Amino acid sequence: MGSKNSSATKRADALRSIEAIVQAATECLGQNPEASLSEIARAAGVGRVTMYAHFTSRAEVVDAAMSRAIDRGNEVLDTVDLTGDPLLALSRYIEAGWHLVDQARALLTAAQRELSAGRIRELHAGPAARVEALVAHGRAEGAFRTDLSNAWMVSVLHAVMHSAAEEIRAGRLTSDRAADHITATVIAAFTPPGTPVPEMGGGVGP
Amino acid sequence: MGSKNSSATKRADALRSIEAIVQAATECLGQNPEASLSEIARAAGVGRVTMYAHFTSRAEVVDAAMSRAIDRGNEVLDTVDLTGDPLLALSRYIEAGWHLVDQARALLTAAQRELSAGRIRELHAGPAARVEALVAHGRAEGAFRTDLSNAWMVSVLHAVMHSAAEEIRAGRLTSDRAADHITATVIAAFTPPGTPVPEMGGGVGP
Repeated sequence: MGSKNSSATKRADALRSIEAIVQAATECLGQNPEASLSEIARAAGVGRVTMYAHFTSRAEVVDAAMSRAIDRGNEVLDTVDLTGDPLLALSRYIEAGWHLVDQARALLTAAQRELSAGRIRELHAGPAARVEALVAHGRAEGAFRTDLSNAWMVSVLHAVMHSAAEEIRAGRLTSDRAADHITATVIAAFTPPGTPVPEMGGGVGP
Repeated sequence: MGSKNSSATKRADALRSIEAIVQAATECLGQNPEASLSEIARAAGVGRVTMYAHFTSRAEVVDAAMSRAIDRGNEVLDTVDLTGDPLLALSRYIEAGWHLVDQARALLTAAQRELSAGRIRELHAGPAARVEALVAHGRAEGAFRTDLSNAWMVSVLHAVMHSAAEEIRAGRLTSDRAADHITATVIAAFTPPGTPVPEMGGGVGP
């Protein structure tokens, strides 16, 4: 019994340490994509021995932080209505998804440096499946073009969202105008050839 | 005189070594973005001492290889006619620029891991200026939208080109169809709201 309690305590301690490390990694890498393992350990209040007991490399810590950010992102996207008019559904997705990309952009920079492109795609499988369904819905309704593949259109949406994050970092776009820019661009990109590009309410201004 | 000749010989040797290292880096990183400095030195046929005499870090080698790839790219783009009908000029730019991105994509992956986003932008200043002029021309002619900034449209074009490189790497797009996909997407993205998306000759097929 004593030993069972002791191992349960150890497990609880381990979970607490892992949670503290992932939380600290999200914050540290969010501020500086170059943050080292020692900085993350310090911010988590754990020693190097504890850090290396749970994560054998910086890549593993970045992977865990990115996985958690995407899990939380999926929870947010679960609340977005992606049914009805495909143009409005796409706008709603971009409005919510954009904020997630914006919040996670330093973390994503760290992930792009540390993880393979394949692993980053794998981590994004949840959001990607959502956009795939949204694009398929728009194609079926005739609102989106069908001369390009669904997969290509999903990649264009993600590329434009990430491009907005880069433009903000470069000081050429402000966060509050990002969703409008992405929406205006992607809706035009998805318009079937021969059909007028929809004029979205409000416009984006030059 | 003897000493002058000797220093001229040393300079010539140094230039030859640097050229061999940059050439080897372009090839090694092109095949594997993770290629180490020792692998690059071995491929260049230089020792570690020579390598470190000219480049103090892997980042410097990646930077030099990327700079050279972009210089060569600029030479290719110099031969592309970017005047006349903006849609055709954009198609020609994409056709040529896409091949450069395709050839350099493993090198770009290495650059994204090793260099800052600011430095990568700086290196791309030449191609970026070209696209800026092309976009400005299309806007002035009424062929491209003016409700989004020139800078944003340039970043969208580059994002979609790089996205095609990623899609090829993921096995979801073939190289021979990339230019058509990029052109069809970007021309639609650049179409002024309220105007029909141009149907490009040939089409891209689903």
